[in-house]
Amino acid sequence: MKIGKHTIVFENTPVILSTGSAVGPKEKEGPLSPYFDTTIDDVYFGEKTFEKAESKFMAEAIDLAIKKADMNKNKIDYMFAGDLLNQCISSGYTARNLSIPFFGLYGACSTFAEANILAASFVNAGYSYNSVASASSHFCASERQFRLPLEQGTQMTPNSQWTVTGSGATLIVKADENNIKDYPHISMATPGKVIDLGIKDIANMGAAMMPAAFDTIVTHLEDTKRTPDYYDLIVTGDLGKLGSKLLIDQLKNYGYDISKQHMDCGVKIFDTETQDVGVGGSGCGCSASVFCGYIYPLLKKKQINKVLFIATGALMSPVSLGQGESIPGVAHAFVIENLEV
Amino acid sequence: MKIGKHTIVFENTPVILSTGSAVGPKEKEGPLSPYFDTTIDDVYFGEKTFEKAESKFMAEAIDLAIKKADMNKNKIDYMFAGDLLNQCISSGYTARNLSIPFFGLYGACSTFAEANILAASFVNAGYSYNSVASASSHFCASERQFRLPLEQGTQMTPNSQWTVTGSGATLIVKADENNIKDYPHISMATPGKVIDLGIKDIANMGAAMMPAAFDTIVTHLEDTKRTPDYYDLIVTGDLGKLGSKLLIDQLKNYGYDISKQHMDCGVKIFDTETQDVGVGGSGCGCSASVFCGYIYPLLKKKQINKVLFIATGALMSPVSLGQGESIPGVAHAFVIENLEV
Repeated sequence: MKIGKHTIVFENTPVILSTGSAVGPKEKEGPLSPYFDTTIDDVYFGEKTFEKAESKFMAEAIDLAIKKADMNKNKIDYMFAGDLLNQCISSGYTARNLSIPFFGLYGACSTFAEANILAASFVNAGYSYNSVASASSHFCASERQFRLPLEQGTQMTPNSQWTVTGSGATLIVKADENNIKDYPHISMATPGKVIDLGIKDIANMGAAMMPAAFDTIVTHLEDTKRTPDYYDLIVTGDLGKLGSKLLIDQLKNYGYDISKQHMDCGVKIFDTETQDVGVGGSGCGCSASVFCGYIYPLLKKKQINKVLFIATGALMSPVSLGQGESIPGVAHAFVIENLEV
Repeated sequence: MKIGKHTIVFENTPVILSTGSAVGPKEKEGPLSPYFDTTIDDVYFGEKTFEKAESKFMAEAIDLAIKKADMNKNKIDYMFAGDLLNQCISSGYTARNLSIPFFGLYGACSTFAEANILAASFVNAGYSYNSVASASSHFCASERQFRLPLEQGTQMTPNSQWTVTGSGATLIVKADENNIKDYPHISMATPGKVIDLGIKDIANMGAAMMPAAFDTIVTHLEDTKRTPDYYDLIVTGDLGKLGSKLLIDQLKNYGYDISKQHMDCGVKIFDTETQDVGVGGSGCGCSASVFCGYIYPLLKKKQINKVLFIATGALMSPVSLGQGESIPGVAHAFVIENLEV
């Protein structure tokens, strides 16, 4: 059911039955290290290239989610996934190896939210009993594709962000009386518009993506007639320290104070003081791994019960920037809740 | 509702209210020329780059679909679109200018089917009243991104295909008593698995994508317990002459004869004898423009009433091929029918 301008209500409460998360060495050194299912010391993950390693991180995350739910892979109807690599090869090759019907997505760093919204949409509508949603990114593959090869040894600018090496996956299933009391469900989604305020600095993605996060959060709160304090946590994907500050300020100016509930996955996954990551983590593996490794278990243990999760993406390419275009942002939001008892 | 292994039935019969198609000069010289809404003689479409031109083709196709339905753009809830460019910039920048909430997709040349399946899924489930689905491609942008820049003047190999410059868009709306009798509706979808039989020749995409088309068609027919003669047309996206022949032969070996109903958009859009296009057209703009310009009007005039439409995509990238990977294919199918009266 649609409410307000752009919000969808999932009346049949599709359940997140399990998650899987797998990250690389830099993430292992970060503050969330104990929360991830798998941490790998080798950025190559035993493969010959960064791109193949990224695909392996996604495969690992999906495999973990399936195993934790003790589900037969053949019972999974659809896979919704994407990544940052050209032609989304990380997801494509993972889907090939899994042999599950595959919807390839590209929402830049918003992809994990997009995947979960579509998977929940399918399960809620009865098109699917069980679907998997995933996203991945890899620091080394991203640097060479979007910026410069690591071999060149260029320095990061202060406002840049460090692409997370890793992946997260959720297994979303039809709600029934056995699972709905014990597992969090996806109750709503607010897919976002593409917003572009003219930022052209590829080393300042937080500022480029913030306006889209602002627009989607305002749309969500207005559509649902809720205020920020309805939520235990309002989580953004990877705005970083700078983008997060801009978002909180901008929403405060508009009349919404999210400062108490707000958390940014990019700020949380690294220690920005000591890990030399600029203003925080980024990449669609960032929100994916933090949601699956850290936030979902908090919901599962009922330490928190209502989460608004907004992943933001920057929809430019090196080619579009070279042609003088600015950086458009998009932000997709979904709500994860525990059943009230 | 899900039936069989992987087929979705859209009980609420989401209606295709209008389509728009816009193509370039080579397509204007082809046999389908009179069917397209807009044909442009300039591959730049008045822009400074091929990439910006591609985005303009998509904007034009969507604009045409909206105008023909006499609909206010603000009434469109969601846009489902993708293209072949790195980071899907053709769709992303079009979505920015339209200001409609945007699901970015990447299914290579299967993207148009993926977009229509998702848009129909949303309208059928009541998440959306009106959604738009689109895909685009551009010969010059594709050559330089996937193969070699045109300035280099390399020759095509005999089995290669010519990427269509153009776009198509559908406007999919909630069925009601006013529209369901007069307009075709999307009744089913069979999303496909990623299939890879080890083809590594980037100049033979038809052979790489055929196994996916075969798998999706067999799954669809088995799930629905239908035979090929249920359909007036069974349309593939861009297998070309070679891939089409392989598909027909392979299905015949399996027990299904589609030779009478089969049509391939890539074969139909160009005169492969005189236009120097290898074995036919390709690119997600191929199936998009041919569906919107040629097939939809046939359905609308009730000259045909039941169409199975399968768009195939090759999910490789120049990077993955350079790293020794083979070319995986994916094929998504959907059914367009007129209400029986």
